[in-house]
Order: sequence, then C-alpha cells, then structure tokens
Amino acid sequence: MYRIESDLIGELNIPAEAYYGIQTQRGINNFNISGVKLYNYPTIIKGLAYVKWAAVEANGELELISKEVVAAVVEACKEVLTGTYDNQFPVDMIQGGAGTSTNMNANEVIANIALEKMGHPKGAYQYCSPHDVLNCSQSTNDAYPAAIVLAIYFSNEKLVDQLKSLSNSFRAKANTYRDVLKMGRTHLQDAVPMSFGQMFDAYADTLDIEIANLKAIATSCLEVSMGATAIGTGINAIPGYAELCTKKMAQITGLPIKQAKNFIESTPDTSGFVSYSSAVKRLATKLSRLMNDLRMLSSGPRCGLNEINLPGVQPGSSIMPGKVNPVMPESVNQVCFKVIGNDLAVTLASEAGQLQLNVMEPIILYSILESVTILGNALDGLRIHCIDGITVNEAHSKELVLNSIGIVTALNPYIGYENSTTIAKEALEKNRSVYDLILERNILTKEQLDTILSPEHMIYPQKKENF
Amino acid sequence: MYRIESDLIGELNIPAEAYYGIQTQRGINNFNISGVKLYNYPTIIKGLAYVKWAAVEANGELELISKEVVAAVVEACKEVLTGTYDNQFPVDMIQGGAGTSTNMNANEVIANIALEKMGHPKGAYQYCSPHDVLNCSQSTNDAYPAAIVLAIYFSNEKLVDQLKSLSNSFRAKANTYRDVLKMGRTHLQDAVPMSFGQMFDAYADTLDIEIANLKAIATSCLEVSMGATAIGTGINAIPGYAELCTKKMAQITGLPIKQAKNFIESTPDTSGFVSYSSAVKRLATKLSRLMNDLRMLSSGPRCGLNEINLPGVQPGSSIMPGKVNPVMPESVNQVCFKVIGNDLAVTLASEAGQLQLNVMEPIILYSILESVTILGNALDGLRIHCIDGITVNEAHSKELVLNSIGIVTALNPYIGYENSTTIAKEALEKNRSVYDLILERNILTKEQLDTILSPEHMIYPQKKENF
Amino acid sequence: MYRIESDLIGELNIPAEAYYGIQTQRGINNFNISGVKLYNYPTIIKGLAYVKWAAVEANGELELISKEVVAAVVEACKEVLTGTYDNQFPVDMIQGGAGTSTNMNANEVIANIALEKMGHPKGAYQYCSPHDVLNCSQSTNDAYPAAIVLAIYFSNEKLVDQLKSLSNSFRAKANTYRDVLKMGRTHLQDAVPMSFGQMFDAYADTLDIEIANLKAIATSCLEVSMGATAIGTGINAIPGYAELCTKKMAQITGLPIKQAKNFIESTPDTSGFVSYSSAVKRLATKLSRLMNDLRMLSSGPRCGLNEINLPGVQPGSSIMPGKVNPVMPESVNQVCFKVIGNDLAVTLASEAGQLQLNVMEPIILYSILESVTILGNALDGLRIHCIDGITVNEAHSKELVLNSIGIVTALNPYIGYENSTTIAKEALEKNRSVYDLILERNILTKEQLDTILSPEHMIYPQKKENF
Amino acid sequence: MYRIESDLIGELNIPAEAYYGIQTQRGINNFNISGVKLYNYPTIIKGLAYVKWAAVEANGELELISKEVVAAVVEACKEVLTGTYDNQFPVDMIQGGAGTSTNMNANEVIANIALEKMGHPKGAYQYCSPHDVLNCSQSTNDAYPAAIVLAIYFSNEKLVDQLKSLSNSFRAKANTYRDVLKMGRTHLQDAVPMSFGQMFDAYADTLDIEIANLKAIATSCLEVSMGATAIGTGINAIPGYAELCTKKMAQITGLPIKQAKNFIESTPDTSGFVSYSSAVKRLATKLSRLMNDLRMLSSGPRCGLNEINLPGVQPGSSIMPGKVNPVMPESVNQVCFKVIGNDLAVTLASEAGQLQLNVMEPIILYSILESVTILGNALDGLRIHCIDGITVNEAHSKELVLNSIGIVTALNPYIGYENSTTIAKEALEKNRSVYDLILERNILTKEQLDTILSPEHMIYPQKKENF
Repeated sequence: MYRIESDLIGELNIPAEAYYGIQTQRGINNFNISGVKLYNYPTIIKGLAYVKWAAVEANGELELISKEVVAAVVEACKEVLTGTYDNQFPVDMIQGGAGTSTNMNANEVIANIALEKMGHPKGAYQYCSPHDVLNCSQSTNDAYPAAIVLAIYFSNEKLVDQLKSLSNSFRAKANTYRDVLKMGRTHLQDAVPMSFGQMFDAYADTLDIEIANLKAIATSCLEVSMGATAIGTGINAIPGYAELCTKKMAQITGLPIKQAKNFIESTPDTSGFVSYSSAVKRLATKLSRLMNDLRMLSSGPRCGLNEINLPGVQPGSSIMPGKVNPVMPESVNQVCFKVIGNDLAVTLASEAGQLQLNVMEPIILYSILESVTILGNALDGLRIHCIDGITVNEAHSKELVLNSIGIVTALNPYIGYENSTTIAKEALEKNRSVYDLILERNILTKEQLDTILSPEHMIYPQKKENF
Repeated sequence: MYRIESDLIGELNIPAEAYYGIQTQRGINNFNISGVKLYNYPTIIKGLAYVKWAAVEANGELELISKEVVAAVVEACKEVLTGTYDNQFPVDMIQGGAGTSTNMNANEVIANIALEKMGHPKGAYQYCSPHDVLNCSQSTNDAYPAAIVLAIYFSNEKLVDQLKSLSNSFRAKANTYRDVLKMGRTHLQDAVPMSFGQMFDAYADTLDIEIANLKAIATSCLEVSMGATAIGTGINAIPGYAELCTKKMAQITGLPIKQAKNFIESTPDTSGFVSYSSAVKRLATKLSRLMNDLRMLSSGPRCGLNEINLPGVQPGSSIMPGKVNPVMPESVNQVCFKVIGNDLAVTLASEAGQLQLNVMEPIILYSILESVTILGNALDGLRIHCIDGITVNEAHSKELVLNSIGIVTALNPYIGYENSTTIAKEALEKNRSVYDLILERNILTKEQLDTILSPEHMIYPQKKENF
Repeated sequence: MYRIESDLIGELNIPAEAYYGIQTQRGINNFNISGVKLYNYPTIIKGLAYVKWAAVEANGELELISKEVVAAVVEACKEVLTGTYDNQFPVDMIQGGAGTSTNMNANEVIANIALEKMGHPKGAYQYCSPHDVLNCSQSTNDAYPAAIVLAIYFSNEKLVDQLKSLSNSFRAKANTYRDVLKMGRTHLQDAVPMSFGQMFDAYADTLDIEIANLKAIATSCLEVSMGATAIGTGINAIPGYAELCTKKMAQITGLPIKQAKNFIESTPDTSGFVSYSSAVKRLATKLSRLMNDLRMLSSGPRCGLNEINLPGVQPGSSIMPGKVNPVMPESVNQVCFKVIGNDLAVTLASEAGQLQLNVMEPIILYSILESVTILGNALDGLRIHCIDGITVNEAHSKELVLNSIGIVTALNPYIGYENSTTIAKEALEKNRSVYDLILERNILTKEQLDTILSPEHMIYPQKKENF
Repeated sequence: MYRIESDLIGELNIPAEAYYGIQTQRGINNFNISGVKLYNYPTIIKGLAYVKWAAVEANGELELISKEVVAAVVEACKEVLTGTYDNQFPVDMIQGGAGTSTNMNANEVIANIALEKMGHPKGAYQYCSPHDVLNCSQSTNDAYPAAIVLAIYFSNEKLVDQLKSLSNSFRAKANTYRDVLKMGRTHLQDAVPMSFGQMFDAYADTLDIEIANLKAIATSCLEVSMGATAIGTGINAIPGYAELCTKKMAQITGLPIKQAKNFIESTPDTSGFVSYSSAVKRLATKLSRLMNDLRMLSSGPRCGLNEINLPGVQPGSSIMPGKVNPVMPESVNQVCFKVIGNDLAVTLASEAGQLQLNVMEPIILYSILESVTILGNALDGLRIHCIDGITVNEAHSKELVLNSIGIVTALNPYIGYENSTTIAKEALEKNRSVYDLILERNILTKEQLDTILSPEHMIYPQKKENF
C-alpha cells in the first residue's frame, strides 16, 4: 500500500504506513552507501526534534504559524524524543546534500505525526507542511548543524559517564594496591620505584582530565546559527526570529546554547566540530597509550614484566594450553586507531567547505558519532571484562624493585654517592642485588635498609632532615 | 534450547541451533563494540572457508586426518562458500585476540556442519574437533591473515568491476562530446582550450590506471604463511605441510597464491595490507579530486562555470525553487574522506605490531573491507544517478573559449607575437573578445579565424608547417 | 683548540670556545638527522633559560645552592634570553633521549656562562656544575616539558600577532567594499545575494575566533611538573620545591603558570601538546578553506567567477602572456597540508608514550614549532603580497546577482510565489534575466525593482511589514 | 653590484654575480616560508638539469634551436649536474605557482651559464633565453613533474643503499647469534621458542623486502609527460617532440623512463607520487615497529626483558648513575612519525588538484624528499651507533625459555598431552620450572630433555618420526 507524493523532481510512491515522505524516499534511493542509518544514531534524531520544537514555537510566537499547528508539532516533537519513531529515519548516514535528506526526514516525520494528531491523514500537507511549517524560517544550513551540536552533546554525555565508570574502576584498584611497590620505568629502562596506588591513581586522574576536557568542548560547541537560513544573511527569516529561536532551544533543552556572532562566518564553518573531534582523538591517543601500558605490565607470565594480571576472558591459543591474551585492551587499541582515522576524516571534511557552506557535514556527524559510540562500548567492555578484575603480583613487583640497581638512588643520601656507585657497579657486574650487597658488607642494618626502602621513603619527596 | 560447551575458561550455554560454539560465544560476549559483524563482510567468511578447505586437504594427504573427516570438512567448507551459513558468523568486526574469535568461529561452524554431514549432532567434537581437525597444523596467526588476503582479493574484484563500469560511463560521455570545445584551466585561471572528449577520456583513463594498480597490488598480496603456526617457526606443523597447503590454496581458489619466504618475518608483518590500503587511499584521493572537478564544472547555473549539467536527483533547497545540488559527487567526496581516515587506522594498526605478532589485524581487515565496500557502493550510485546523465552546455562552453584571452596563444604562429599581445591587452582593457577584435581589424578573415580556432587546431600539437 | 670533558661514557674533545659541553657534543655526534637545530627555534632556548632561572632561584631559596652561584646563573640565564648564545645550541631538533641532549645543552651553556661571570674558565664545573647546579632538583623529564610549554606559548604569541594583522587586512577590505553586492553560493550553486563587506568581515571574524582559541589553549598549556623529577614521585626534590619553582616561573615570566595536579599522571602525558597541535591543525584546516575560496573567487578572468582580483606578483606562464596565478594562496594551502601532517606526527608521538615517560617529546616540539613558524611566515607573505592588494570587480559581481535566478527569492513577498515561479522558469528556459523580464512585463517599475534588489533589502532579514 | 632584469610584472635588481634571474628573484621575495631551499635538496636540481638537457637536445634535433646554443646549454646542464651551481637555487621549497619558480630558476641559471660559455655576459638573453630556449616546447607543468620523478629516483637510490647497509648489519647479528635460543612472544605473552638468528634474519629480510618495494615503485614512477606543455594538449609543442624528448631523457640518464599514455590525464595527476610516498610511509611504519621491538627487548636491565643490550652512546640520566637509554631507536621512531605525517601532507596535496593541473606539487616534492633524507640519516645513525654494537644476553635469554611454561608445547609429542598439562599446571601454581619438574619426576633423563629442548628441535618444523 502506497501513497503518492511529489516534489520538484516528480512523483514517488511512499509506503502508506511511513511517516517519512518523498524527500526521505529520494534520500533512501540515492544513498545506498554505508548501510548505517540515521536510526543507528538516535542522538541526531533527538537533536532534530529539539531544533524543530524550538523553531515551531518561535515561529508561533512571531505569528507565522497558527497555535493549533504549533501545538500539534510540539506534541509530535515530544513523541520523536521518546525514540518511538526512530525507525522512521532510514536515510544513510553518508549522504550528499549537506544534510538536506536528514533535515527533510525530520520535517516529514514530524509533519505526519502532527497531521495525525490533528485528525488528518499522512500526506495531507496542506494542513501542516514539511516545508512551510516544519522548515519555516529555516534552512537545512542552519537547522542541521544545530541538530548536530545537540547530537554531539548528548552522545558526549554518555561517553563521559562511561569514562567516569572506568576512572572509578582504576581508582578502586589504586585503593586496593595503595602502597604496593613497583618499579617505575622511563625509556623502558628501570628508573626509580613507585607504587601501584600511584599508578592506578594516575590512570584515574588522567581519565578525569579527559572527562573535563570533553565536557568543556562539547559545551563550547553549543553555538547555533538558527535564523541564518541559506547562507547566513537571514533571508526569509524575520528580525527577532534568530534570538527567539535560540532562546527557545536553550529553554527546552536546559542547555547553555548560544547564538553565533556572525552567521555568514558560522554557516560554512565547522571548526567547532573539528575541536570536538580533536578532543575525542586526544582521548583515543591517551587510551591507546594506557592499553599499551596494561599489556606490557601484564606481559609474561615468565618472560615478561608480569607485574599485573588481566583476567582471562577467552582461550588465547589452540596450541599452548593455558595461554591467555590481553584481548580487551587489544580491542580498545584498535578502536582508538579507528577513532584517530575518523578524526582525519573530520579534518578533511572540514577543509572541504566552499564559499558559503560546508556540504561535507554528514560525514563529520557520522565520524564523530561512530567514534564516540565505539569508544564508549569498548570502554564498557574493558572495564567489566578487564580492569575490574586486575590483580597485582605484589611479591614479584616488590622483588623487582629490591633487585634493581635503581634503588641506590634512594640510598644516596644515607651511604653517600661514592658508596652507592661502588655498590651499583658491583651489583651490575656480579649480577647481585644491591640489597644483599649492602647487608653483606654491613653498611646498613636490615632494619635501616628496610626503612629506607619502604614505600613512604622511596615514592614521595623527602625532607632534607630525613637524609 | 541450549547445549553446553566448555573450554579452558569454563562452560557456556550455546543456542542449540547454533553452528558456532563456545569460543564464538565468548567473542560475542566480550566484543560488543561496533555492531558490525563478520556476516556483514561475507568475503572474510569466504576466505576462511577456502583456508580451512586447503588445510584439511593438506592434513589429509599428510595422513594427519582421516579421509572420512576430510571429506566431510571439505563439503562443509563448500557449503559455507555458498553463503548459506553467513549468519553463523556473528562476532564483532572489532575484536581483540588477533582474530582468534574469527578463526575459531570458522573452525566451530565448519566442524558442526561436518559433524551433521557425518551423522553426528552438533557439539560432538570427539568426531571432528574445531581444534584438532579444523585448526590442525595451524594457528590463528597463520590461518587468519591467509583468510584476510583472500577477503581483500575478493572484495577488490568487486570494486574493480564497479570502477570499470564507472570508467565506461565516462568513456561514453567522451564519445558523445568528442570534439566539443571547452576551456582548459590551470591554477583555476583560464589557460588554453581542450575538448570534452579529452576531459572525459582522461577521467576514464585515470580510473583504468587505478583498476590496474588495485589488481596488481591485490594480487601481490596473495602471499600466505600457512605452516608458520604460532610465531613462524612452524612448531606443530610437520615438514612439507606449508608447501602443500599453499599449493592446495592456489589450486582450490585458482589464484596465484604464494608462500612467504620467511615465516618469522611474515608473521608479525602487515605491510602487504598497508600497501593495499594505500592503493585504496590513492584511489580515494583521485576520486575526491574528480568529484571536485565535476562540482566545479557544474557550478552555476548563472554565476558559475556552468559547462556541464549533473542530473537533478533531489530538490536542493526548500527556499529557492529549482535549486538542484550535486549531491551524488558530494556523497563520493565524503566516502573518500572516510577511506583516507581508514587508511590511517590501518597505518596505526600496522605500526602497533609487537615482537612475533601483530594483534591489530582485525581493525586492518575491518577498515579495508569497509573502505572497499562504501567506495564501491558510492561509485555505483554516482554512475547511475549522476555520470550517466551528465550533459554538456556546448554553446556556452565554446563561447567561453572564444571569448577568452587564452586563444591568442593559438593565434601566435599566424599573426605574430606583437599583434597577439596588442590584441590581448585591448581585449582585457576594453572587455572585448579577441575574436571580435581580430575580425574588426581585418587581421584575419572569419574563415581563417574559424579554421585556426577549430578544435583540431587548438587541442593537438601542430606541425611547424601549419604555422 | 679543545678542552677535554668526560662523562659516564668517556672523554671527548670540546671546542675551547664552546659554551656547550660533552653531553651536547654527544648529542651532536649521535643525531645528524634533520639539519634543523635548536638554534633555528629560539623560543625553546628562551623556554629553557626561564626554567633554569626559576629552578636556580628556588634551589637558592631552599638553601641547596649558594647565593653567589645563584646570582651568576641568573645572570647567565638573562643573557641567554637575549639570544646572544643561540648559536651555542647546535643539537638536532630530532633526537632520542626524551630531550636529555636539549636539557643538558642548556645546563652546560648556562653553567659555562656563569663560570665565566664568576671568574672561572669554561669547564671548571667544580664551581658550577651542569648537573648539580643547573639540574638541581630537576630531571629532563620535568624541566624539558616545562621549557616546551613556554616555547609554544612564545611562538604562539607571534603567530597570533601575524593572524591579527591578517584579520585586520580582511577587515579593511570589508570596509572598502561594504555594500558591494555579490552572489552567495552553496554547493557551488547559485544561492542568494550577499555583500563583499559581509564576506570579508566573515573572514576577519573567523580568524579572530582562531586567535581567541589559540590564545586560550596556549594559556591552558601553561601547566608544569617542576619537582616531579624522574617519574613524578619527586625523588631527589625536597618538599616545597615544586610549589616554589612553579611560583618563580610564573613571577619571572609574568605568565599564569600552574602546577600539574598529579605528577605521576602528568610526567608521561602530552595531551596538552596534542590539544595545542589540534588547535593549529584547526587553524590550518580553516585557512586552507579560505585560500580555496580566494582562488575560486578570482578564477577567470573570462572563464571563471572573476569576482575578485588578486595582485599579480610573478608571471604565471611562459606560454600565455598576461597569465597571473594565485601563487600566494597556493603557498598557504601547501603550508596548511604540512601543518596537518605535522599534527599527525604529534598524535603518533603522543600515543607512543610508555609507562612513566613519553620519550617522543622532541618530535612533538619540532613539529609544533615548525608548523607555527611556517604558518606565520606564509600568512605574512599572504597578507603583504595578496590580501592587501585585493580588488573587487564590482560591476561584474553585481551583474551576476541581477542576472541570477536566485533573486526571485527576494521578489517572492512582492510579486507572489506564482509570478516568481513563472518568471524563474522563463528566465531559465529562454536564457533571460529575471530583472529584464520583470520590467518587460511591467510587473514592477524600475524604481521599485531597484529598491527591492538593493543590498539592504537582499542581504539582511526583512520585517514582515516590508513585504 | 646589480644588473636589471624585467618581466611582465616589471623590473628588478639582480645581484651581478647571480646566475639566476628575475623570476627566481621574485620567487625569493614572494616565498619566505620554510627557510629550506632548493639547494638543500640537490636531487631536484639534478633532475631539472637532466630535463633541460634532454629538452634542448630534442629541440635541437627538431631544428627549433641552433646547434651552437644546444651545445652551450648541454655543457651548462652538465656543470649543474656536478653540483657546482647548487647555491644558485635559493628558492624556498614551499612555494606557490606549481613549481614555476623552480622551473624558471633552472631555466635562468642554465641560460646564464650557457651565455658565459658562448662569450656573452649574464642577462644577454637575446642569445639564449630562459624562456625561448630553456623552456622551448615545455611548460612548468610538464618539465617540473619530470624533474620530480628524477629527484625521487635519485633520492631513493641513496635511501636504498642506507637500508641495505642496515639490513647487512642485522644479518651480521643473525650470523653471530645464529642458534642462541630466546623466547618468542605473541600478544606480549610468552609463546614458543625461537633463535636470535631467526629474529635478526627476519629484520634483515623485512628490510630487504622494503628495498625491493621502494626500487620497484621509484622505477614505476619514471613516467613523464614531456610535450604535454600547459594542460596536456601539447599546445606549442610540435608532433614528435614528446617521444623524442622522452627518449633523450632515458638515454642521458640511463633510466627506463617512459612516456605517459594520456597527457591530459597525467598532467593534473600525482598518484605516482602518492604511491611512492605510501611506500616510504610503509617503510616508516615497519621501522617504527622494529624500533619498538629493540627497545622492548633491551628493556631492563633488571626489571625488563633484558634479552639484548644496545650500546650506550650518551648518559641517560642525571639522577641515576649508569642509566643508559635506547636513544638511537627513539630517534628513528620519531623520524618515522614525521614521515607518516609527511605522507598525509602528500595525500592532501594530491587530493587538491583542480581541473587541468595540481598546483600543490611543491609540497609533495618537499615532503617526500624530506622524508627520504631524514629517514636515511636516521638509519645511518642507528646502524653505526646502535645495531652494529648490539650484544645478546645469551644465558638469560636461554634461561627464560627453559623457565617458561611454553616449552611443554615441545614436550607434547614425547610425554603426552596429559603429562604436559599436569606439569604445566604445577609449574604455574608452584612457581617452578617445567624443566626441573620433569627431571624431578624422572619423566625424561637430562640428556633426553636437553635434546628435545635443543634449538634445532624447538625452532623448526619436526618430522612425525621425531615424535
């Protein structure tokens, strides 16, 4: 069963039950590219619903649309926000037209829901038109990027929650292994001691820094150009609409949404998205580094560092019984690589803006939402299947420290630089431990030595008086 | 309804009707990342089936597996090759473990199909084990990359077909507009004339060059390390297996598959994939350039170059009646950006190999197959909805040429450099056409002028005698 | 003439007149890579001098170094800040060792200057040691990154000045061509009118936004880990040093320098540099877009858009007299590509941090300083040789607008949608201008038409009463 | 002392002793960007000299230039090839104009040398013009890319030599440590044994593969469009010139230089450069991986893998006596990051071609030559200061193997899977060695065990009869 709709290009059959209309159908027909649809990323649908809600209220207040229609459209937007109509957004995430198909998809779906609410059949656009009502005072060129900033904001909120859970998971490990000694390494070479508490705290802190950074940048992106219309001159939007619509958006969403200062400037500009994508790239860069650390620290069990154990979640080899691999961090590393690649796609798309518009916004949206989503998913898996179950090989780690040459650094203030150097040399040449040599030669008592080599002495700055 | 399977980690319920087993199930549970599954990329399933087929025949010939089991496994592999069992490969494309989940997914599905063929129920692995039979003389570390090179090869075949169709489409345009004059431009500045035939031929030729390049590189990637097992030393594979298995792979697939020269070298190396990905990146770089050209040449209709018309496939604006945008090339540009980003992901993953293995191969596989697929899809859309329908504004394009200053270059040999310069200057200053000025001053007759400015004179090298 | 110096590895001849010492010499010998030296980037030398100044004062106040030596070292640092000793920093910008060669280069040069000030010969390190005095309470791992943040800050200051000059140059053009009409284009297709004033203002504004962004991020990077020493545990630094040294740095430089919250976290972390590099990348992305616009708008003179003229600064062709190419924007585009590439190098280096340190900081420093320097140089050239000399083809640009179909959009409210559509269609089909058709049919008087099509009517939002 | 030269733009003073002329001077004035000059990359000067030599001979044979002038120009080209005039090429490597400044720099220098040879003063261009003689039948758009392919070829030859030396250095290590056992690791987890001979051979082999790849691609890039002139139509070049000039280039250089099939296609295309840059990127990706391996294998000395020792070339720490860091591999890693960044710059530049030309070729040239040069330099340093001096910790490495659980894999065929599993489990739980447990329980004699665990048994495929 179909209904017929028409546009400048001609007529098309639309499935009778579809809330979307002819322009969505053209988008479906034209763009059969990635298999990933708008409905796979509900935050963009949510963003569009808020934009249309704010716009119709602003238009109503400016007496461009009747109260009855405004009320119906607002109700329709609220229903779209519940996610009920997500499946009505079947356009490919990769599309030409600078998001026109996406914007029109929202216009058509909301118009048809509103029509039904007013007792009209779908397609009776004379009562509520996707163009004249839903796109009133708008253009894809202002409405679509406004929806994108919301989509990014909402997606970021979830990512931040996922990061916070991961940070908490590291923090718990820090508390569990607060003062357990381990070797610190620079250049992959033995350096000086530290504790697992310090290490896990640093991981938690470094994620908290990313959380703050992501929040700040997602918030600074909440700048819209509603009222700019086609190229920023505001053609077909009346004075006052821009300010009013932006104010409505802020009220309805409860977010600190601001108006861009110069619409001609902001319409072709996507540098806010570049900044957000860079922030996600920065997170990926850091996470990949952390995963490398975890994989290295758990290397072994016999021929590696073997300081920590990652939980075994699947057999690692069909040849060697008992081999278990760090598959969860490995999966995160790979996600990070994809995210860094996506950031490049965003960069390229941003550079490709021309004259009064950047038509490459759909790939910017897709790349960012994909990155945020797969990062979040991967971090959830990492936390549950890996971080929460990490254990520390306390004895082995401490033994590595005590067996290291690096601890002479801590003995320096007590036994003098000359003694230290002699001991260090001998330890290296004879493959002995500094600890044993000191005791053997009665330079210090075991008690003295244990005090000096205690975590509190070795891993924090020491007063001169302590020397 | 479930059956219970067990491995080193413990037991799990497996859906009774599933052909996959416990290790696949662990992969499903551990990696919930991208939502994109192995079954979304059937060429990797096809690749795995060929690898397992070749391996089981080699193992059979070496009397490591009984004839009955070999026969059943071969039948199972053939059925997997038909695509019937694609839905039994539900592991996420992004996964840790260097492809172990993927390799074991194939081992389990094929084992269970073979079991049913031999009259056993699924899970009766004592008769045909995913490990002992399907993975015999193998490791994920040799079988998985071998499947990848096949997946790439098969995916490339399709891309090449899609490119050839596109090239043919450009060639047809070249034939239609063989000698229609147009302006050539360098630095975006008017240069000297050429024909649309030359332009479209160049587009066809440049795609043909990419086809040859992709074919050559995909073929050069057909190098496998079957028999390398875990790290390339061939532990658990008997002498002769490597050569035999590789020969079988070549025979069964009909492809010029070679054996890597040094398995220790080849096992952690992914530079073949880097090269293939670079070739796809190169294609994307070129296609993006072509799309930019098409969009620029069709700019207008009144305030742009307006030399060609791209078919209108959807309304371009809700504000301006009649505006039609180059949405198909725009979609291809964006795909190209994603592909260039994916190539970076491949680069990062390749760099991240460590010691005897590169565990990041799954993201390499995913990135490459995604790039090839979305490029192919986008090119099909481009061809059908855009290139096939291109028309040329012959009169306008010719007028631009005749109205240009650049044609004095062609007059040089006939009227002398001094005359040319005078005419050029006056044309620029008085905003007149060179053509008109020449006639006005009776420097040449209209007939002479038309001959000199004919396409055959202007767009090919001219003999000195013609001057 | 040489003096002999020695270290753990052995002895080396040092040129007698050199202020640098053995570790610098080893750096010179080991790293012969890029030919680009520390002295090519004086801001890193300046950064090091400030760090050493602050550290020696802090160490003095904590009674770790005598007043006489502190005074001499401070004097030495001040002299280094004048640039007089820049040529004493001959180590390659690309170096292993996480900046140890750079840090020791500063330690050695400053020590030798101080020695001479105190009446000692160069190399008499018993009176002022590069290690014990200049590196006191420090490690390369805290001092070097602290110098980097200063180097970035100082380099950014210059870039920001260069950007401001460019922005002013665009602003001047906006004032010159305030209300000159031109066509606005989206998707490279004719859209609706705007003015050159709006266009050039948008360019100025968009650069001003980058200036603010760069300043904010360079300032947020002013976070140091002085006192962290080797791995962040502060080993060999006494309590209070960290706070005091940071305070000194802020006082001496007058900059809002803060102390990192967690030294274990901050020591291996380079995400501040990633953020700054991303900001420079963002600027490059935007600048490249602007250059593309300028080149497109000046395309022609006969077969392109030809709205603006870029000054001719060199002959463009040896074949066609009079051809002048947009070489200045082209040079900026290319710099932008290099900058985007450098940002990738920074990303890769940042990801490569391991455990308690990121040893890849030298390439981060080099890539960022190179990007900032070549961008600044290119922008100076662009402004002087191109932007300042831009002229606008007023008549042609206005004619394009009046000749466009897009102006019917502006007539809509006055002559009705139906009339507009009819006129638009006819204009397209008969290749006539909307303006002429309206007059021909007496739909509006010339006066009315000119009023409606005046800049003030077409390029700003219009009140309903105006319709 | 100056001479005055003039062009379309006007007059300029040229230093009297300069062989370059006005267009070079304009290039110097306009492009003050990177501080890196043409003379820093002599291979591009060499490339230009060969191109001009071939062109003038072809033009002479076609009777377009007199024999006397041809002879003088050929002599001049030969002198330029000696490098004597390198300092006459002072234009910035980053330049707008698609290489016009570079091409004219060559034209001017060669013309003036030829003039002097014929007894004329510099600047007497009426006897030998930079345009009419040196650029005869040419355009920057065909001559410049032809010089680039030669520059790349010559630079690649040096890089290949440097790689071969490095490969030989690894090969020597393989021979020294042929059968010394070490642990093989996958996923950074203990896997199965291998030998240092196998490891170093793999490094040598993998470099040899890169050598072959680089050679093949540099050779395949030897395709020129001489005769294409401005846009590929061959305007101003007479029939036969293209073939003749290409033949001359091949003869003079002795290289297999071919003519592009379609000049309209080849003129704006830079995909050959993309391929070469990708090959260098691939090498960098691999080298970075190798450096990571070396740094990891030399980690320690006490708390790391400690299998190999890299020679100490500079003190690693001012805090810890005796600390020596892997600074040479670290420098190579960083060069690799820069190279990967440069490849991105090449990609961006290639994508930015428009219509009949790619004006971004100068940054392509610069990026590639920089990458090749710094890679070569870094590899020389690596070889001399690091690889040649590597030593292996034989006892420790063997002990790791014998102490590993992984060796049960090798015992499997002799003691059965059940015994193996029991031993493996106990070894892990009780922290004992497999070796000791086997002996303790008299499962095998020491002799038997030592035979089975000998290198020849563990690191090559074993016949079934051996089991």
